This record gives sequence, structure tokens and C-alpha cells, in this order.
Amino acid sequence: MSSERKSALVLVAHGSRRVVSNDEIRELAARLAASQANEFFMVQPAFLELAEPSIPDGIEACIQRGAMEVVVFPYFLSAGRHVAEDIPAEVKIKQAQYPHMPISIADYLGIAADMPEMILDHLRG
Amino acid sequence: MSSERKSALVLVAHGSRRVVSNDEIRELAARLAASQANEFFMVQPAFLELAEPSIPDGIEACIQRGAMEVVVFPYFLSAGRHVAEDIPAEVKIKQAQYPHMPISIADYLGIAADMPEMILDHLRG
Repeated sequence: MSSERKSALVLVAHGSRRVVSNDEIRELAARLAASQANEFFMVQPAFLELAEPSIPDGIEACIQRGAMEVVVFPYFLSAGRHVAEDIPAEVKIKQAQYPHMPISIADYLGIAADMPEMILDHLRG
Repeated sequence: MSSERKSALVLVAHGSRRVVSNDEIRELAARLAASQANEFFMVQPAFLELAEPSIPDGIEACIQRGAMEVVVFPYFLSAGRHVAEDIPAEVKIKQAQYPHMPISIADYLGIAADMPEMILDHLRG
């Protein structure tokens, strides 16, 4: 994922009726984009429901800004129906519309192999 | 949180109708307990709803096993109603029952300052 390939990251959260929760995701996307470790040329927040933009609209925003590759990242902790079915169904809409654009879905956060260490680091503050 | 103080960690997830999602949390608790970075003498999974044990039952299990301190960790990504209200209400039940036992609630995972780097590490696999 070199920047030459212009890879875009779509940070997907569930979406909430609480505006502050959705803003927290938008802020996280901005922090991701600003991180020194970041290799994506843009980080786009998107929501499965209850907030805007939707996942297809988020992917579209990346393509309109010149993405040559889009990675959809489910910011979820467990492999529920949302991760297993709902997000892939939303992504498929854009994959069908742009058959030559690589649009992939990354592993959801909760499956991270080093989650125990992430948690213990977090608890030590 | 030295082991001398016998601190217990309660890993709190939402709970799901999907058995596999709840088992994923139980497995994460076991991985946390087994981690070399772990300082808790036990790690107890608990669920806000839809699965067992409940948060009060999870805290009780720690106390029955000799915990001198209980840290309740919300394994949640956003500060929704569950984190802001529901988990504290459940914890309060046990704080009232054991007024001399230190039972605290740690920051939820999503607020971690280094979440962007956690995510980018995860995406690099």
C-alpha cells in the first residue's frame, strides 16, 4: 500500500443516534490520516447506519478524490452479522459499479492477534 | 496493580445472540489472562446483555476467588449509552454491596490515545 498507488482507507463504524459518538469516529479518521504511521492518502469515515456518509457514499468519495485502491476497514470488535454480512453487502454495491477498482475489506479490529497486548497497554495508560 | 494486591480484570462486552461472538470474548479473556504482559491474577468475561455472566455476576466471581481489587474494562469502541450509563449502573450494584472493595471502571477501549497506531499496525497485519 504505497502512497504511489493512492490507497484510500474507509473507516467503517456502526453509527449511532448520538451525534457525539459519530463525531468521535470522524475525529478518529482525522487522527488516522494525520498519523506518522499512515500510508493512505486519505481516510474516509463511513457508517453502516444511523449516520452519514453510508459505506457506498464513503467509497465513492475516495474514488472521486482519485483513489486507485480502496480498503474498507470494519472498526468493530466482534464478528457479528454487521461484519459478516451487512458490510460486505454494502461494499458489493460499489464493487459491482467499479469492477476494475480494487475495493477490499480488511479484517475487523477485534480479530487482531495482539489485541490482548493492546488492551493491557491501554489499561496501563 | 501488582499481583500482590490480587487485582482482577472484568472484560465487559455487549453480548450477542450469536454464540460464536460471545465465545470470541471468552477466548479473548483467556488470551488476556495468558499474556506475558498481564498483571491481573484473573480475567473474567462478562456481558451487558444477551449472554452470561452478567456484569454483577462477573464481579462476584472475582470476589469469590479472592480479588482485593476489581477493574471493570468496557471492551467498547465508542462512548455510547452503554459505556456512559448502562455499565456504570451495573457496577454500582456491586459497589453498593461491597462498599470497602475497590471496584473501578477503566476507560473504554475506543478512547485509547494510540488507537490510530493500533489500527495501522493491525492493517499492516
